[in-house]
Amino acid sequence: MTRRLALVGLGPGDPELVTAQAARVLREVDYFLVADKTERHPGTADLLAMRAEICARHVPDGWRVVRVADPERDRDAPADYGAAVRDWHEARAVAFERALLANEGDAAILVWGDPTLYDSAIRLADRLVERGAVDLRVEVVPGLSSVQLLAARHGLVLNTVGGPVTLTTGRRLLTDAGATNVAQGDNLVVLLDGALACRELPDPDAWQLWWGANLGSADEKLVAGRLSEVIDRVQREREEARRARGWVMDTYLLRRS
Amino acid sequence: MTRRLALVGLGPGDPELVTAQAARVLREVDYFLVADKTERHPGTADLLAMRAEICARHVPDGWRVVRVADPERDRDAPADYGAAVRDWHEARAVAFERALLANEGDAAILVWGDPTLYDSAIRLADRLVERGAVDLRVEVVPGLSSVQLLAARHGLVLNTVGGPVTLTTGRRLLTDAGATNVAQGDNLVVLLDGALACRELPDPDAWQLWWGANLGSADEKLVAGRLSEVIDRVQREREEARRARGWVMDTYLLRRS
Ligand SMILES: C[S@@+](CC[C@H](N)C(=O)[O-])C[C@H]1O[C@@H](n2cnc3c(N)ncnc32)[C@H](O)[C@@H]1O
Ligand SMILES: C[S@@+](CC[C@H](N)C(=O)[O-])C[C@H]1O[C@@H](n2cnc3c(N)ncnc32)[C@H](O)[C@@H]1O
Repeated sequence: MTRRLALVGLGPGDPELVTAQAARVLREVDYFLVADKTERHPGTADLLAMRAEICARHVPDGWRVVRVADPERDRDAPADYGAAVRDWHEARAVAFERALLANEGDAAILVWGDPTLYDSAIRLADRLVERGAVDLRVEVVPGLSSVQLLAARHGLVLNTVGGPVTLTTGRRLLTDAGATNVAQGDNLVVLLDGALACRELPDPDAWQLWWGANLGSADEKLVAGRLSEVIDRVQREREEARRARGWVMDTYLLRRS
Repeated sequence: MTRRLALVGLGPGDPELVTAQAARVLREVDYFLVADKTERHPGTADLLAMRAEICARHVPDGWRVVRVADPERDRDAPADYGAAVRDWHEARAVAFERALLANEGDAAILVWGDPTLYDSAIRLADRLVERGAVDLRVEVVPGLSSVQLLAARHGLVLNTVGGPVTLTTGRRLLTDAGATNVAQGDNLVVLLDGALACRELPDPDAWQLWWGANLGSADEKLVAGRLSEVIDRVQREREEARRARGWVMDTYLLRRS
């Protein structure tokens, strides 16, 4: 019997930013499959509480959680890094497959923000379908991304008129900004940046920065201004946010002034 | 007295893709300010019906629409094109300002998709605030973008692992793809493309295409495959969609294979 596996975008944190479709799907499935990272990442207990708040608002009759233990990642800098990551992804697919086999009915995987942006749930589901041990119908339920909330909070259009917008990661920012000879007026949105890579941009006077942390949560933080003038404040607020909750998630838009 | 002007993202068309926040704001304001383009663009009557369906679902007690006549755009290819566009934007701000002055209370401007992506409502609101004739508190309510629905429908992550994604327009596609020496694995999302500019890409065998039209509507269309192999089908389906409803809105992702 074909079972449903819904990958549900919850939006960036605020329960009000969930779509009607996501809320419906959360109510329809039999259980939520949740990767259990609490042991490795203590800060995630707080994220779990935020997620419970989202569910409480949209699934008033309650829900069932099936925890999937996250496989150990081999951190000893193995000779073949790519292979280690692939092994880990495969071990994770196996763990989810076991959970699906042990629990009948339709399942949802809950995703922060939008599953279509820098998230692994879609690739995980593709792998489960390829493995073929469970007969699944995969359904992607889009959600608001943190990038959109960043722009909305700053009252900002991501693109300049008719211009392109590039979403990238902290790791790629410096190569992207350098290598693609970003034209005047280009727009770069950075996610997954653990260390404010924009600090290293060659000409910090030439960029405007719009930054946001823990968007959609009770203690969201926003800073905007010329990169060279606001970067120290951003770094301070980022550290404060991290101290307050044990974790911080931040994203920002850079635009040439 | 400060009045509220909410710019509300409705998502790409399906009433289920509206967030709880957008629905609440639609219920809270006194009226919707709607640019009346029906005379210039006959197809928009159909879009108005889709919008009414969204409102009917989320504002069960009914709503009030204040129509704002869209100023005439000077189409006679004026000597100074930039100035003509600026004049038109100013005339539009004046028209909205008059409507706000003539109608007390809180207003919302309804936006397709997300106001933070290729939309003019935020710039219009900024201009209204600058002009200062109405005391406004502007509030941006994010919405799902057509880009996210495209990816969700195709079960697609927009980025390759850790890679950048560039959103751009039909007009800019060829320069962007050429000028920025897009690396292997790069991802380009194209909006506002009236003529399938991807047809002109130098190496159509080298790209995968995921295309979608009228996403979120009853007759949404999806095509995916190698650019060189599917482009004719895309063009055909695009024409069919346009004939069926009098309009078509489409967007696509290109990825080097
Ligand atoms: C693995 S990616 C997931 C992105 C997510 N799928 C989305 O659509 O927003 C995680 C990154 O998203 C950004 N992010 C996610 N949630 C955020 C939030 N609430 N506030 C600020 N940034 C956030 C941060 O850059 C973080 O490093
Ligand atoms: C002025 S832009 C507005 C984009 C919108 N703010 C968003 O977030 O999707 C209009 C372009 O968006 C895309 N678009 C908007 N709605 C769409 C839909 N329902 N299906 C496919 N493409 C759509 C098309 O590329 C269209 O030319």
